[in-house]
Amino acid sequence: MGALLQEDRLFPAEASAKAVARDLYGQVRDLPIVSPHGHTDPRWFAENEPFSDPSELLIVPDHYIFRMLVSQGMSHDALGVPRADGSRATRDGRAIWKQFASHYHLFRGTPTRLWLDHTFETLFGLEERPNAGNADATYDHIADCLARDEFRPRALFERFGIEAIATTEGALDDLKWHRVIRESGWAGRVVTTYRPDSVTDPDFEGFRDNLVRLGEITGCDTGSWEGWLEAHRRRRAYFREFGATATDHGHPSAATANLSRAECEALYAKVSTREAAPEEAELFRAQALTEMARMSAEDGMVMQIHAGSRRNHSASVFSSHGRDKGFDIPGPTDYVGALKPMLDAVGFEPKLSVILFTLDETAYSRELAPLAGAYPSLLLGPAWWFFDSVEGMRRYRAAVTETAGFYNTAGFNDDTRAFPSIPARHDVARRVDCGYLAELVVDGRLDMDEAVELAPDLACGLARKAYRL
Amino acid sequence: MGALLQEDRLFPAEASAKAVARDLYGQVRDLPIVSPHGHTDPRWFAENEPFSDPSELLIVPDHYIFRMLVSQGMSHDALGVPRADGSRATRDGRAIWKQFASHYHLFRGTPTRLWLDHTFETLFGLEERPNAGNADATYDHIADCLARDEFRPRALFERFGIEAIATTEGALDDLKWHRVIRESGWAGRVVTTYRPDSVTDPDFEGFRDNLVRLGEITGCDTGSWEGWLEAHRRRRAYFREFGATATDHGHPSAATANLSRAECEALYAKVSTREAAPEEAELFRAQALTEMARMSAEDGMVMQIHAGSRRNHSASVFSSHGRDKGFDIPGPTDYVGALKPMLDAVGFEPKLSVILFTLDETAYSRELAPLAGAYPSLLLGPAWWFFDSVEGMRRYRAAVTETAGFYNTAGFNDDTRAFPSIPARHDVARRVDCGYLAELVVDGRLDMDEAVELAPDLACGLARKAYRL
Amino acid sequence: MGALLQEDRLFPAEASAKAVARDLYGQVRDLPIVSPHGHTDPRWFAENEPFSDPSELLIVPDHYIFRMLVSQGMSHDALGVPRADGSRATRDGRAIWKQFASHYHLFRGTPTRLWLDHTFETLFGLEERPNAGNADATYDHIADCLARDEFRPRALFERFGIEAIATTEGALDDLKWHRVIRESGWAGRVVTTYRPDSVTDPDFEGFRDNLVRLGEITGCDTGSWEGWLEAHRRRRAYFREFGATATDHGHPSAATANLSRAECEALYAKVSTREAAPEEAELFRAQALTEMARMSAEDGMVMQIHAGSRRNHSASVFSSHGRDKGFDIPGPTDYVGALKPMLDAVGFEPKLSVILFTLDETAYSRELAPLAGAYPSLLLGPAWWFFDSVEGMRRYRAAVTETAGFYNTAGFNDDTRAFPSIPARHDVARRVDCGYLAELVVDGRLDMDEAVELAPDLACGLARKAYRL
Repeated sequence: MGALLQEDRLFPAEASAKAVARDLYGQVRDLPIVSPHGHTDPRWFAENEPFSDPSELLIVPDHYIFRMLVSQGMSHDALGVPRADGSRATRDGRAIWKQFASHYHLFRGTPTRLWLDHTFETLFGLEERPNAGNADATYDHIADCLARDEFRPRALFERFGIEAIATTEGALDDLKWHRVIRESGWAGRVVTTYRPDSVTDPDFEGFRDNLVRLGEITGCDTGSWEGWLEAHRRRRAYFREFGATATDHGHPSAATANLSRAECEALYAKVSTREAAPEEAELFRAQALTEMARMSAEDGMVMQIHAGSRRNHSASVFSSHGRDKGFDIPGPTDYVGALKPMLDAVGFEPKLSVILFTLDETAYSRELAPLAGAYPSLLLGPAWWFFDSVEGMRRYRAAVTETAGFYNTAGFNDDTRAFPSIPARHDVARRVDCGYLAELVVDGRLDMDEAVELAPDLACGLARKAYRL
Repeated sequence: MGALLQEDRLFPAEASAKAVARDLYGQVRDLPIVSPHGHTDPRWFAENEPFSDPSELLIVPDHYIFRMLVSQGMSHDALGVPRADGSRATRDGRAIWKQFASHYHLFRGTPTRLWLDHTFETLFGLEERPNAGNADATYDHIADCLARDEFRPRALFERFGIEAIATTEGALDDLKWHRVIRESGWAGRVVTTYRPDSVTDPDFEGFRDNLVRLGEITGCDTGSWEGWLEAHRRRRAYFREFGATATDHGHPSAATANLSRAECEALYAKVSTREAAPEEAELFRAQALTEMARMSAEDGMVMQIHAGSRRNHSASVFSSHGRDKGFDIPGPTDYVGALKPMLDAVGFEPKLSVILFTLDETAYSRELAPLAGAYPSLLLGPAWWFFDSVEGMRRYRAAVTETAGFYNTAGFNDDTRAFPSIPARHDVARRVDCGYLAELVVDGRLDMDEAVELAPDLACGLARKAYRL
Repeated sequence: MGALLQEDRLFPAEASAKAVARDLYGQVRDLPIVSPHGHTDPRWFAENEPFSDPSELLIVPDHYIFRMLVSQGMSHDALGVPRADGSRATRDGRAIWKQFASHYHLFRGTPTRLWLDHTFETLFGLEERPNAGNADATYDHIADCLARDEFRPRALFERFGIEAIATTEGALDDLKWHRVIRESGWAGRVVTTYRPDSVTDPDFEGFRDNLVRLGEITGCDTGSWEGWLEAHRRRRAYFREFGATATDHGHPSAATANLSRAECEALYAKVSTREAAPEEAELFRAQALTEMARMSAEDGMVMQIHAGSRRNHSASVFSSHGRDKGFDIPGPTDYVGALKPMLDAVGFEPKLSVILFTLDETAYSRELAPLAGAYPSLLLGPAWWFFDSVEGMRRYRAAVTETAGFYNTAGFNDDTRAFPSIPARHDVARRVDCGYLAELVVDGRLDMDEAVELAPDLACGLARKAYRL
């Protein structure tokens, strides 16, 4: 280890538990990375062009980073974050980096700091953290690295030890970059994921136009409910051709519904032809989830539900800079009532597997672990987003395991578009999980041979199995 | 200790705290078990027949166990769980045990695993955990044990060091097994608890028939509100004859109400004569709680409120297998608004003691500890159900103590029908509590002599006092 | 250290973390106390008269203390707590003290116990805790101390090392004691805080009379919305003359609104002339918060929102003894939806700073840290009220830091009227924070030089900056 990373980081402080954690970690550190849910750009792997400058790679697209800088008075514009109209106030990577470097202390105590330290040390070989004094030097150093062949996307993919990575594409995507990857003959396994929000959520920008486009792509009559269903079936099959084993659904709530066919037709007739009222939009999303579950029970695609984010909280930021600009704030999320219609409809279908994510930690022990600990079709996804963090993961394990056990969880996934941080994220998860197992061993709740069996499951085995990769 | 249990399990890992915990635990380990709330069958102690085979005792009736197995794809039927119509798909104990044994790893990290390990080692002397390979042998070994006299219910009761145990009977129960116990001259103290849900909850199966039966049993006119009240008074008195010191109320919410007599009469006239609307049922349950509190303020029976479970979440499981089949899922539970009508009515009555339980852990520090730390009539029950677990208890102490102190809590109770696991459950609680006290001592928040005073209170003293046993 | 306090209290138990914590604490222990939010009486510092007897100083005004005693069966009356009509059932300080002393064990495990132990040992030099046996002796000893000059308010202020303290006064207060302090020439910095609840909350006792009085004081026409706004501007300016840098708002919820001017005028016309309906009162409070934020964006006063307490839960205690008698119980509190109108209106105003407090800990990681980690105008206040405690602070840091970092928090404040406990409260916070930093260091999440920089920020630097003192 070098200047930024401590060798035994994130292990329990107490010596006997630390020794167990270190031992377990040694057995999983070098296992391959299975990354079944994320947002890297398949174009990177298709074209294999060098990444552009450090800020374009590390700062501008990362809402964890610019959110924190904005919270302390910097502006989206000065950080080069694209505006809603696609324009950018600056493309001066060096100036953006300087702001970031001189405020790196703001990230103390956050997972972003852990991921970046890991990236800086292990990928770029930095010997000190960015700061106001070394901003130019660190920028130049990373820029030099990125220009070299061993920092091209495919080289990094291989260096990182990625066994498989899933990207996420919208239902209307033509998956051309995935086609290019496949046709290139490169051995890296990059699969897509079916994300149909743009044609299942009436509140999505351009929803009705998207339905028209969906009809064009599939040759289905998306003017009708049955046509809409069939169009999804065809798109799902198309995505499976490019390796997709899963679908993903980002909804404000976990609401599901189980309407009659006549009700579905009537609701679809409304939302597909005019602006939906809020309760109509919610009901349509709810019914759409149940339909997706029905299709999953048929075609075996694993279904992911990412619920609970109140997107675009700031009206002014949304207006100036659009979606995904760090102003998505969670709220309380019900799962018990919300999922009941879907579970009553298909909860015991043998091929169905639904992975649940939450931004409301209170649901872990109260709702999600009891649900996953009962329904055979449910698994718990790992600690997500704000909780993809040391304390977040620790709370997750402590809240979930006693009711759902380990085997009703879906293992780790990184859910990131920050490609260079992927090894760091898996490393944090492996360390925290080994620390948790070590504490169970020292606590007398688990034998060492059991921990040795569980550690690789938590590192990659459960993810591989849950996502059918 | 043997092969399954580590001697210092569940104590803090850090050496100084571990030493204190071990010391405290040594002082309470052998104290009698006070079990003031549970669901063992009084018939066992009345007849004192040997328990039937291992699966009938340990698997089939335990929703903690079959729930987990079902969540991983086994079926209620294959596990011999009784169907709603009383039939069973199998009674082959050995086959059921085989499924359980070959999936015992699913329980890693759960309290069920702790309880079972303790039972297997200390009660049955197993030297390895059940697994696919030893399923027949472990089944046979336990079956042999159960056939011996020292494994009969009364012998176990005595071996376990039970000072007193409370069972739970419905308001319409004739308590005949309690009568048999009493008349047998056996010294074991088995008392009943008054559980009137079947005649206080209009949503309970057969509610209106139950009211008729209540009238027949008591000689009261349960066609009228006043008759209903008087019938309860008589049943409570009858239960007290069989040792009852407490009542218990399992409601979906903690709602209470304080209606006028005319409103009560009108509401009762509705719910006692026709299907209640959901809001009528909720209001009647709410008023019933306040009436039970009024009676407790008179007759001194301690009142327990177990709120917050959304029972029978899966429509299909409820339809095929009925109640209590592992598909009860908690939801958010309000106490602050819910209890106010009752507390305004009788919250300062000197003889009233209400013990509150929750399945929504967020209520501990936000609502329950502030309430119990203010109202003299309120006590907090221990961590319940999904939270009757190592982490659950630790979170409970950390969340509750700073606001309510120790003396506004009701001590531990096991709330179980799994008789053989009772010593294990109390042992886990004693270890966790001694660990918590030890951490306070090491942290400088408590002197050792205070911890020595508190440890037996937490082990059994507070329960004895809270339940007036 | 003496008989009551352990030297390394509240540091991590594990040796390496303890050593780091001790080191960090050594660097902040003697830093000045910055107390930017509290409820001490400015009259004390103005008149500098000796405090009266021990019970009048320590027991009678402290709702943390008498609440706990009441919860165990003592009465407000017997403890000398003033009744709603201003009368008192007893003024016998010695008898009150005797009850307290003989029940001091009830506080085991609570922060009150920590604060009192610290006060007893470091301020009064007691060598054992109060108990039934030493009640007279401890009472006499403390009474003797209080009679001495070095225990007068200004002497204590100086002995405590207070750099600045803020009191809280209602909008109608004439601030005469602040004037006396200023004119006395004494160097102690005592500033006021603008607390306008009595004229922003239609549910406040005497609201409409208060509006009239507000008009008289300011010379504004508080019969009109514009006059009401102008009256606030003038009072804020007046409070600033007496050092105020902040306003404070204690509302049942965090609701804000952004109505049109016509809607404001119409709403004000209603609430200022007749009893407000509950939803009108809520909407008026909500609009008032946004107006206060607008004024803060102009005049630079820091705005504090203390939301989520259901005040006066017991109707009988409120009727007999009035407000603030220990029966304020928190409830779930929404921030994400509630603050949106205000944040959309002024969330990016450069001079605006809003400090958020909560009694619903679930909001820390779900809502408050994401909000404060995004909006430049938001800071998180420290763990408040029931959570101003060891475990409360630990949970706060663990829940908040990963998303909001350290620099979006407002440092510690004591929020107390219990003047003698102020050093104890800051000491607890400094110990807990140093322990938290130490754990991050040992965990490899923070370098020691960073912890050394952060420790004084958490001890007083962030509070000084957040409150612009």
